[in-house]
Amino acid sequence: MNMKMYQGFNREQLEERMRMMENRFEQHKAQSLKLDMSRGKPSKEQLDLSDGLFKNITNFESEDGIDCRNYGVIDGLPEMKRIFAQMLEVDQDELIVGDSSSLNMMYDVIARAYNHGLMNAEPWSRLDKIKFLCPCPGYDRHFAICELFGIEMITIPMNEDGPDMDMVEALVAEDRSIKGIWCVPKYSNPTGIIYSDEVVKRLAHMRTKANDFRVFWDNAYCVHHLYEENSLLNILAECKKAGNADRVFMFASTAKISYAGAGVAAMAASRDNIRHTLGQIAIQTINPNKVNHLLHARFFKDLDGIKEHMKKHAAILRPKFETVTSILKKNLENLNIARWTTPRGGYFISLDVPEGCARKVVAKAREAGVTLTKAGATFPYGIEPEDKNIRLAPSFPTPAELASAIEIVCTCIELVALEKILLNEVNR
Amino acid sequence: MNMKMYQGFNREQLEERMRMMENRFEQHKAQSLKLDMSRGKPSKEQLDLSDGLFKNITNFESEDGIDCRNYGVIDGLPEMKRIFAQMLEVDQDELIVGDSSSLNMMYDVIARAYNHGLMNAEPWSRLDKIKFLCPCPGYDRHFAICELFGIEMITIPMNEDGPDMDMVEALVAEDRSIKGIWCVPKYSNPTGIIYSDEVVKRLAHMRTKANDFRVFWDNAYCVHHLYEENSLLNILAECKKAGNADRVFMFASTAKISYAGAGVAAMAASRDNIRHTLGQIAIQTINPNKVNHLLHARFFKDLDGIKEHMKKHAAILRPKFETVTSILKKNLENLNIARWTTPRGGYFISLDVPEGCARKVVAKAREAGVTLTKAGATFPYGIEPEDKNIRLAPSFPTPAELASAIEIVCTCIELVALEKILLNEVNR
Repeated sequence: MNMKMYQGFNREQLEERMRMMENRFEQHKAQSLKLDMSRGKPSKEQLDLSDGLFKNITNFESEDGIDCRNYGVIDGLPEMKRIFAQMLEVDQDELIVGDSSSLNMMYDVIARAYNHGLMNAEPWSRLDKIKFLCPCPGYDRHFAICELFGIEMITIPMNEDGPDMDMVEALVAEDRSIKGIWCVPKYSNPTGIIYSDEVVKRLAHMRTKANDFRVFWDNAYCVHHLYEENSLLNILAECKKAGNADRVFMFASTAKISYAGAGVAAMAASRDNIRHTLGQIAIQTINPNKVNHLLHARFFKDLDGIKEHMKKHAAILRPKFETVTSILKKNLENLNIARWTTPRGGYFISLDVPEGCARKVVAKAREAGVTLTKAGATFPYGIEPEDKNIRLAPSFPTPAELASAIEIVCTCIELVALEKILLNEVNR
Repeated sequence: MNMKMYQGFNREQLEERMRMMENRFEQHKAQSLKLDMSRGKPSKEQLDLSDGLFKNITNFESEDGIDCRNYGVIDGLPEMKRIFAQMLEVDQDELIVGDSSSLNMMYDVIARAYNHGLMNAEPWSRLDKIKFLCPCPGYDRHFAICELFGIEMITIPMNEDGPDMDMVEALVAEDRSIKGIWCVPKYSNPTGIIYSDEVVKRLAHMRTKANDFRVFWDNAYCVHHLYEENSLLNILAECKKAGNADRVFMFASTAKISYAGAGVAAMAASRDNIRHTLGQIAIQTINPNKVNHLLHARFFKDLDGIKEHMKKHAAILRPKFETVTSILKKNLENLNIARWTTPRGGYFISLDVPEGCARKVVAKAREAGVTLTKAGATFPYGIEPEDKNIRLAPSFPTPAELASAIEIVCTCIELVALEKILLNEVNR
């Protein structure tokens, strides 16, 4: 937003615009809307796409004759591993398939790193300080894990092609207490960007002071295209080339492929990392829910099955994303008071409003019945110093609800921006 | 075994018996049996009892209109909580329903106690030493968790009515580093005993030096009767009466009600403990698999539904337990070389052989194709100083296989006992 806000408006026109927006806001409020677009939840229509999971179940025997109902198979059902191996471009023995939550798998990696230590490393609980790099805006649940463990978070600016790698490289080369970086490398939450090949390579090759530094590669949206298929460089392959095979833990799940709360999650890493991890998981539990693995493997069959399925999701999601961006454009274009992303996949649109306005916009929208993600949520500790980023999650509402909600958001942005301008002018 | 082994046999008769057993052992070996009775796995026939879980699924909406496929509801689906509340005799807000593994829930309680601390307590990772009391023989997977965390395990003798409470009380009153005790209070693994009311009350009332001492109440077999229904005093209620409401974490699961590897697990505790735990779990994951909760709640309906269902399990298991005990009796009665339990529920028979013989018996049985639970597994670190306890798990094999296996075990016990006697006599 280098341009001046409301360029070409004089004070009188600004005040008139303010009155117009105040009227509009009262009209919005009169609708008594109640709409939650705070989280990236799939809609009912999307969930229905996978109800075939539970159709025509005649037996629970896997391809290899495993009775999926019984105990055993700590690393997950082979046919489900095969699908994740295709999806993440790794070998089957570089994988662990778990229960439904990839977030829980990430948490567990960190919890085990604290209690027992990563491979060939001492437990983090014995060290004075642990730090993680957090490209921002990012995913609030990653940051919440760090906060719970008392991990100091260092904000890294997020560019169009991934995190600011100059800064990342400089930090990890010097500071032994930096043990990890959070990455959502494809259709990033919330900006929607995809890490460039160069960024992936630099992450794989960079020199780190900590021997047990790990890239937490949360590939939550790897097959979640809204338009064309976009690819992402395979970071495990790059790490191997760089002689840093053990540097990365990759995560994925079918949360936004099958069921958000009842899908299948997986993690991938080098064989040594997987072997070491399984040694610990084997004490933690007996097996993941293999029946759920079996139902998923039978329903999707292979990566092609998943890709076909994702086209159905895209057909539902694409118009929602386009509703949001077209309404933002219609209302706010040329006012220079907002900037938003137009992602080619994933679940979010990242919206920037003028500095110091995000919290006010979110509060104002709530007043009119629209719950947005808490302002600041995309930054460590829930605080964005510049107070300008808002995450929009268009997936859950119906298109009509969404249109109303975004109209309201636009009005709120104008109200807050106009107030800021008019006050500043008064103060001049 | 106060009586003399093979009382009334002279050396010649013993040697003749030895030859007879050696012949018998060769015959066993010639059968080339391959039978694993090392773990408490339900049989296929038992698992089939619950296949109704996956029949006629027309929707995924809970009683309260929750879409179980989507995100949310961190503490578990209300209708599944209602069933566990009945089963564990607690209120619904004293419960968290999780994924499939109660072992994982226990591990997580300990992992969180280390990393973040129990309610009003500092993280265990900051303390020099943590100790747990382990009534023995007990469950190897409990002990494995302690070993992984470096928790020092103190063996407590197990009596007919529960652990030796004089010893427990004396230890916990003096040692602040003792933070927990493992209990399988009903149809205990492996002895099958049920904790008496007095033992439960003493556990609830005893004075502990550690403020964050917890009873880990693994009620894995609470409804797993083989004959009549046996009750167990409600430890949470007793703890409340004693003013120690926060002392206990109870665990249960449907692993041996529905599917061993794909059931539903739960934990119960005081409201304050549950609130504190949920605060941490909400960072760890988004929700447990509510679809699995829904299917279970619809299939079982309530505690009565579960009780009816457990009668079908008992009808399958009872003859297996009776096969084991009758063959043991037929072969070994009056020889004074073995003693075994005749449990009224649960999954195991505990078999004691002469001191120093358990490992040899297990090895010998393996030679003839029968895999038993590793000798020593029922003690901390997998080592029983007296080397006499063997855990028999009769659930998985067919009755015919089981009969062959126990015949072999009997032969092996005689071989090892006779060798011991004959060698000792030579050495005299």
